[in-house]
Amino acid sequence: MRVNIERVKQKFNKLASIGGTANGGVHRLALSDEDREARNLFVEWLKERELEVNIDDLGNIYGIKKGTDPSLPPLVLGSHLDTVPYGGRFDGTLGVLTGLEIIENLIDENQEHTQSVIVVNFTNEEGARFPKPMISSGVLANKYTTKDMHMLRDVTGKTIKDELDRIGYSGKRENRITKADKFFELHIEQGPALIEQGASAGIVEGIQGLSWHQVTFEGDADHAGPSPMAFRKDAGVGAVKAMYRLHEWVSSAGDETMITFGKIKTEPDVVNVIPGKAVFSVDIRHPDPNILQRRVEEMKQIVIETSLETRLTNCIEDLSYMPPVVFSSDLTEQLEEICLKESIPAVRMYSGAGHDAMYMNRIAETVMVFVPSLNGKSHNEAEESRWEDIESCMNLTAELVTLSLHSRERQK
Amino acid sequence: MRVNIERVKQKFNKLASIGGTANGGVHRLALSDEDREARNLFVEWLKERELEVNIDDLGNIYGIKKGTDPSLPPLVLGSHLDTVPYGGRFDGTLGVLTGLEIIENLIDENQEHTQSVIVVNFTNEEGARFPKPMISSGVLANKYTTKDMHMLRDVTGKTIKDELDRIGYSGKRENRITKADKFFELHIEQGPALIEQGASAGIVEGIQGLSWHQVTFEGDADHAGPSPMAFRKDAGVGAVKAMYRLHEWVSSAGDETMITFGKIKTEPDVVNVIPGKAVFSVDIRHPDPNILQRRVEEMKQIVIETSLETRLTNCIEDLSYMPPVVFSSDLTEQLEEICLKESIPAVRMYSGAGHDAMYMNRIAETVMVFVPSLNGKSHNEAEESRWEDIESCMNLTAELVTLSLHSRERQK
Repeated sequence: MRVNIERVKQKFNKLASIGGTANGGVHRLALSDEDREARNLFVEWLKERELEVNIDDLGNIYGIKKGTDPSLPPLVLGSHLDTVPYGGRFDGTLGVLTGLEIIENLIDENQEHTQSVIVVNFTNEEGARFPKPMISSGVLANKYTTKDMHMLRDVTGKTIKDELDRIGYSGKRENRITKADKFFELHIEQGPALIEQGASAGIVEGIQGLSWHQVTFEGDADHAGPSPMAFRKDAGVGAVKAMYRLHEWVSSAGDETMITFGKIKTEPDVVNVIPGKAVFSVDIRHPDPNILQRRVEEMKQIVIETSLETRLTNCIEDLSYMPPVVFSSDLTEQLEEICLKESIPAVRMYSGAGHDAMYMNRIAETVMVFVPSLNGKSHNEAEESRWEDIESCMNLTAELVTLSLHSRERQK
Repeated sequence: MRVNIERVKQKFNKLASIGGTANGGVHRLALSDEDREARNLFVEWLKERELEVNIDDLGNIYGIKKGTDPSLPPLVLGSHLDTVPYGGRFDGTLGVLTGLEIIENLIDENQEHTQSVIVVNFTNEEGARFPKPMISSGVLANKYTTKDMHMLRDVTGKTIKDELDRIGYSGKRENRITKADKFFELHIEQGPALIEQGASAGIVEGIQGLSWHQVTFEGDADHAGPSPMAFRKDAGVGAVKAMYRLHEWVSSAGDETMITFGKIKTEPDVVNVIPGKAVFSVDIRHPDPNILQRRVEEMKQIVIETSLETRLTNCIEDLSYMPPVVFSSDLTEQLEEICLKESIPAVRMYSGAGHDAMYMNRIAETVMVFVPSLNGKSHNEAEESRWEDIESCMNLTAELVTLSLHSRERQK
């Protein structure tokens, strides 16, 4: 099976114009008028190919190519059509178009299959308008309740339920898919790793786990003038030393550990007062749950040692923890074999960000394919990918669909 | 000459009760009702000893023991009776009481002298209520204009002039001292250096110069998840590296350089976003103007090198500069000789904070004596000094007065 990349481009350009911005990006918040327009167009395309169109009570849109035995759990492909404010043309859209293009191919080639093949557009993946990302796949996987989702409000106070009703995408609960055989999501990388390594495709083994902490150092606020350096209990310098060492430690570890200090603050925040208090956040990530746990312990050790050495008190608060998600190793191996066979330069990797595949992994054998992002940027009007890479990644996904459907046949 | 420390203690306790706080501190803002009460008491003490009492148009109070030749420039001693909000009992008060006690001694001992000896209480030294510290000595030294001072407002909008009139301390301009022979100020240290070194007195050679800067690093704000460490342009990590190196560099220099990062901030200030921008303040001090200048250049060099190495842009803004003040080396040498003769353990040092002596240095041969602060704290209700140290420092100052008056006599 080979995707028709010209057909994809045409649809891509039409979608890019809905909410298109002056700088070549897309501003299409979940359940906005623009989102409705994109959804309507998507439904129109589904109907053109005579697919069954289902809308569930979460606003998810399913385009279904029925199998010869629709009682079997389906093979599902998809992503999302909503964007962050002033986002890019590729994020989400490519995954939806991949599902549709593969189904169109199955139709064009008159392929028969026992299980149904479904393309899905998930509601509010970004969590940009309604502040919980991947909420609809989260409900499907029983991470969230229907009420969690329906009552979620945007800044103006409108709920998801209100807006689903308004734009006409409030469907039936029985249309939800609650169990699938497999779920494949193609997505742009959102980082520079593939481009830097000269790869055309990323085989995504899972999603990194993360652990968030808040570290507080307290010493003595004092005048900068009359306090000799050696006698100070400078909470700011303590925090600087701790962050410096943590960064050096992670850099020298040379593995997949990542550490970020997004928030750094000192008190009382006056030029000539030695900080009596310093607070910084730690975001630490690793794809392996055991290593992540070990890294968190090591991080705490470094913080404690630094606070002792600098004669400061420390407080390490655990803010949140998300365990790593590991996708199907059968599927990543199959993807690797296809890449070898088709000479697609590919790299195995972990996703740093969450995707609907994270929750779909709970109800289906799941894998993701990443398309290189030219400048490593996403959630940005400057999002850009090469069409030859997109084509390779779509063909890779299509090949995986073919293999999966055939293995189903063989099992039968 | 030996001070009568019991007499000083009695006056000290009376002053400590005016604006005295529950925690043993003093809350006596400039030109408040409490300040008026303290001033009235001071004037009462001056009159008890039949000193001439002059008030100038800045509210400064002078207690004058006339010399046999009042046309000669006077020897002046003093400090201030105002405090910061919830400050201590010692800051300022000790210097005023030292001047008064020494004059009382001259009276008790029937000492004759040609030049007049004056004790002064300066208005609004702290700059706590009216936000310009040392403003009245600053006007005497032509650093500020009379209008600068009179029109200075507190947070409620009241001017210094209003409040001088209200509390009855708006005197005559011709009462100002515009030229003095010498000025001596005894003050608590406001830092821990003397206590840590086991000294009973600090011989203050001058006041450190300072240079304030704002450093901004800019990189790329990006998601913490999908951005491998090696590819990041993390402005926060760049700032941390720069501050770490600056602190190490100053610590290893092992001289009197001091560096403080009072303000540290990152943007966009979100746990899982790599900071695209980081801003920190640099307060750098040294008593020698040439070394201070060199240190500033070296600081900038380290910032620039770090920004290049971390692939960030940098911007170094100069915020303010105060050149070091150097007191009379004749007087510091005399103080050192007295300490040797009297076996007072003393240490030469620079003041990190400003004092009225800073401006008086422009119109008189000036020196300061520092009394050790028990916990190195000032501007704090917990201010504490040992009476034996206070006595040593007052006797040291008294001896310097005797020497100065005698040398005057000899010159004659």
